[in-house]
Amino acid sequence: MIQDISSPANPAIKLLKSLHAKKNRQDSGLFLGEGARLASEAAEMGIWPEILAFSPAAIEREAVQRLIAGAQRQGTRLLRTSEAILQAITKRDNAQTVIGAYRQRFTPLANLAPARRWVALEAVRDPGNLGTILRTADAAGAGAILLVEGGCDPFSPEAVRASMGSIFSLAMVRVGFREIQAWRRGQNLALIGTSLEASQRLETLDPMEGFVLLMGNEQSGLPPEMAQACDALIRLPMAGKADSLNLAVATGIALYGLWSMQGYDGANR
Amino acid sequence: MIQDISSPANPAIKLLKSLHAKKNRQDSGLFLGEGARLASEAAEMGIWPEILAFSPAAIEREAVQRLIAGAQRQGTRLLRTSEAILQAITKRDNAQTVIGAYRQRFTPLANLAPARRWVALEAVRDPGNLGTILRTADAAGAGAILLVEGGCDPFSPEAVRASMGSIFSLAMVRVGFREIQAWRRGQNLALIGTSLEASQRLETLDPMEGFVLLMGNEQSGLPPEMAQACDALIRLPMAGKADSLNLAVATGIALYGLWSMQGYDGANR
Repeated sequence: MIQDISSPANPAIKLLKSLHAKKNRQDSGLFLGEGARLASEAAEMGIWPEILAFSPAAIEREAVQRLIAGAQRQGTRLLRTSEAILQAITKRDNAQTVIGAYRQRFTPLANLAPARRWVALEAVRDPGNLGTILRTADAAGAGAILLVEGGCDPFSPEAVRASMGSIFSLAMVRVGFREIQAWRRGQNLALIGTSLEASQRLETLDPMEGFVLLMGNEQSGLPPEMAQACDALIRLPMAGKADSLNLAVATGIALYGLWSMQGYDGANR
Repeated sequence: MIQDISSPANPAIKLLKSLHAKKNRQDSGLFLGEGARLASEAAEMGIWPEILAFSPAAIEREAVQRLIAGAQRQGTRLLRTSEAILQAITKRDNAQTVIGAYRQRFTPLANLAPARRWVALEAVRDPGNLGTILRTADAAGAGAILLVEGGCDPFSPEAVRASMGSIFSLAMVRVGFREIQAWRRGQNLALIGTSLEASQRLETLDPMEGFVLLMGNEQSGLPPEMAQACDALIRLPMAGKADSLNLAVATGIALYGLWSMQGYDGANR
């Protein structure tokens, strides 16, 4: 059953709007996913929203009709509403005409399937960087993103947008550093950190069966105790006046560099 | 002479505010640079703002005093104003307390010093990506960024911010694709494109003395005629569900991969 909603004061609309604030995401356990394409990709993975809001114009598209039919079977609450209200929900001028509220999911460390590549982020600050790193790790076939010691919320609209769907396809783990240490030793994974002060280039590393790439945050890099716990610390070369790289770019370069040493195993093209 | 300004209607303040709009940047030839650190880095390169606005609190910092003294010698117009007005200029809650208006500069192709690495961007759309690519190219010792066939404005506040100072240190060229072709042949530079459909990995390229890395835009990649003009088209491996990388991340991975084949020459660490 599709519910028609014209009032911005409707409680479900107010709930969707509230999901811009981290506190409300935490209280409800939900987050916003914007766009029919994102919702369709999630649906293909068997992930359905709790609420799906869409404009009358959106329903005329066949892909959206399929999405709505599938969501209905899954018990999703379906809301047809105006583009003005959808804009108010996303706080964007060019709002998507399909918006879902999805349940947040973290995976326990113990439930992860084996993989040869992992990315761990220490207290990442910028949601755009976090989302971009999710996308990059997914592209490189990483087993999961390990979020160490807090950092920004991967379920903020900015992070979800930048992830381009990888928020659904890549597992995320919230975990302390000591747990990572025990787990990665059990899995026989090397812990590779990056540091501006390190002397080693990644090309000089010994071959590794599997690794966890550990990245520090945008402001201050890895805390000393984490840097010391690494099996190797690598630095990315720098020329010119720039003294560092954007965190998502640095993660991409390091991850692809390490993956190349594994012969890009698992690449599907 | 420092001018004290308390009215947001002051013409110089209005000019600074107007620089968020591309049209006003084009008409005035100016752009906004935010923060004392950025201004100090520019000053070290001999680049001074036409206007420098700062809060009373900022002047208490020694670095800002040096900056103001230097700017005064260069004929910069100096404006002391409230933090509320600085916030109105930057349109950010946490405004920097030092803001400069700098003259936009593009370098003609003929004036470029020789280099072994160049990055060309075809119609890049996202200013954050463009700024991040400037930073990355600077870090890899690229000779310049070649902006081909339009694209977003490198002097927008978002691009300038993401460049982290590289807007000042890296040359930028606005140029047509045919001019690039003639120039790069004269310089004996290989033209390397990236494409999701390409079959070649960058590790399989023949050694190159120098190259231009040509990246297509976020939406549609390289236009066919540009792809065909490349000496080689490379693809970045993909696993998982992600079907592409963020443009700035892809540029970083490709650029560092190609630089590694040059033995990271020019790296200062």
